Amino acid sequence: MKLATLKTGRDGELIVVSRDLGRAVRATEIALTLQQAIENWDELSPQLEALYTRLNEDHVEGAFDLDMASLHSPLPRTYHWADGSAYLNHVQLVRRARNAEMPETFWTDPLMYQGGGDKFLAPTEDIEAISETHGIDFEGEIAVITDDVPMAVTPEQAAEHIKLVMLVNDVSLRGLIPGELAKGFGFFQAKPASAFSPICVTPDELGDAWQDGKVHLPLTVHLNGEKFGEPEAGPDMIFSFPQLVAHAARTRCLGAGAIIGSGTVSNPDADGGPGKPVADGGVGYSCLAEVRMVETILHGEAKTPFMRFGDRVRIEMFDRQGQSLFGAIDQQVVQYDPQ
Amino acid sequence: MKLATLKTGRDGELIVVSRDLGRAVRATEIALTLQQAIENWDELSPQLEALYTRLNEDHVEGAFDLDMASLHSPLPRTYHWADGSAYLNHVQLVRRARNAEMPETFWTDPLMYQGGGDKFLAPTEDIEAISETHGIDFEGEIAVITDDVPMAVTPEQAAEHIKLVMLVNDVSLRGLIPGELAKGFGFFQAKPASAFSPICVTPDELGDAWQDGKVHLPLTVHLNGEKFGEPEAGPDMIFSFPQLVAHAARTRCLGAGAIIGSGTVSNPDADGGPGKPVADGGVGYSCLAEVRMVETILHGEAKTPFMRFGDRVRIEMFDRQGQSLFGAIDQQVVQYDPQ
Repeated sequence: MKLATLKTGRDGELIVVSRDLGRAVRATEIALTLQQAIENWDELSPQLEALYTRLNEDHVEGAFDLDMASLHSPLPRTYHWADGSAYLNHVQLVRRARNAEMPETFWTDPLMYQGGGDKFLAPTEDIEAISETHGIDFEGEIAVITDDVPMAVTPEQAAEHIKLVMLVNDVSLRGLIPGELAKGFGFFQAKPASAFSPICVTPDELGDAWQDGKVHLPLTVHLNGEKFGEPEAGPDMIFSFPQLVAHAARTRCLGAGAIIGSGTVSNPDADGGPGKPVADGGVGYSCLAEVRMVETILHGEAKTPFMRFGDRVRIEMFDRQGQSLFGAIDQQVVQYDPQ
Repeated sequence: MKLATLKTGRDGELIVVSRDLGRAVRATEIALTLQQAIENWDELSPQLEALYTRLNEDHVEGAFDLDMASLHSPLPRTYHWADGSAYLNHVQLVRRARNAEMPETFWTDPLMYQGGGDKFLAPTEDIEAISETHGIDFEGEIAVITDDVPMAVTPEQAAEHIKLVMLVNDVSLRGLIPGELAKGFGFFQAKPASAFSPICVTPDELGDAWQDGKVHLPLTVHLNGEKFGEPEAGPDMIFSFPQLVAHAARTRCLGAGAIIGSGTVSNPDADGGPGKPVADGGVGYSCLAEVRMVETILHGEAKTPFMRFGDRVRIEMFDRQGQSLFGAIDQQVVQYDPQ
């Protein structure tokens, strides 16, 4: 089943979307919002699935052509947004950029930070930033939405609570990160509002690509219309989503609608190297920080700038037949105008 | 005006509480929940204020005697919970306990971490913990609730967005903090669900005690029925609430219902020393980590244990006439039972 949220009010309006993303129908007779649906998932998801089946068969009244621009992030806000960093190739690279070693425990104990969930950006909404000197970067990632997760679940138990999958652009202000992390309390101002893909899907929609709690498909990233990366999301994800959810719930329960992110998708080279740009025959990257680090290693300095006002990033994922699964995150960076 | 939330459903039911905390009345004809009220504050707060006036005059139908045990935290969940650490005496002490120096920039750039807002504890709800070895601690603090705050506001502008004040017990698992902070992403498992005071109040209810965006009253903390601390919340708060809100909003807007905490209330001695226990004539502390550090300085080792199953902490604040302002957070630690 595929779900999305029309932009209305703070929480939007839940719609069911056809498998090919072409058509949609309001789900408001079942649940007004995705938050309401996820809070009552066992009761409501069969009704939503039935509507989805009828929509795919073109047997539903009130269906309409889907306009991606009308969509907000599936959850326009959430009570819990936590982002892991499960692709350790990314962690190793960004830490090298900061001259920081990666401890061995990172292979067994997931990194995760708590983010602000009060006002996500829509998938095609501008990224407003105060200054280019903040080092504006995108991070292409996958995320899951859970229902209520009890405290101290095992990864096996956590897997049962993963109800929906989507993409995320975890916008990062690289220039603020070193100073903020040096204070010891983790990211805060360096992680402004994230945006999510217009569509979220149940794991069964991914078919064979959903295995071991990971999505085994490439994540496609374009920067200003040029392909920037197509890393595989499956093989190098060191911690699966069930492991990440269990990590988040170790000392507290999670409320329905919790979003847990994978961290920036990143592949090392086959020989264990840090990965090559697309132009050099590599799979590229899902964030600018990585290419800048590789450039520094190869050429002594970073050539690729961080995002400037007017730059545009597009993040999407296709199945093996080339069909877009989640629609695209497609955002331009603009200068914040306080009016 | 004083507001509270009856325990029903995920968001509870909004009530208006009399100034003396003795009586209450449902506000559901004005707003079903506090979240709804704060999202429409300019429109709804005058109606809530009018109901509050009538309740204090005993001129309202449907009023009932207030049972503190029936109350949840004012916002049982929120989309944004961020906790500052504005009492640098606390920061200096806990860092000394970790053998970490406090950088000079901490006097000018607030510390703040992002917390999970999906499931707060009720004010008298048990604190469920997996293990006493996690170093279970309380942190007595003050917090404010904001309406929608635009990005990049000044502290002067931020002050206008502070609508309500309350207390918080920012439960901390000290045993998990060093390992977690060493990973660089800040607190996560070390900060399980917080609890808030049963009543929240508009700043005008604090009268002269609300000055410069700080609460100039002592915070009273009891541990197992013994007075543990009564530090003054005003003078040693290095960053005011408007400064903390502006810090939180520097690179993103905040959604209505955002909660920003002060950090653990803490006073140094008049001579600049770290503060004495109540038994030694000092004002004591609002967390165990501080007394343990002082014991280590004075006696070479910490004598006071962290909380054990069965231990109880009570956090409240009285005005200069001895009237409880927010009701009491009163919580027992129990062992988590996964059933």
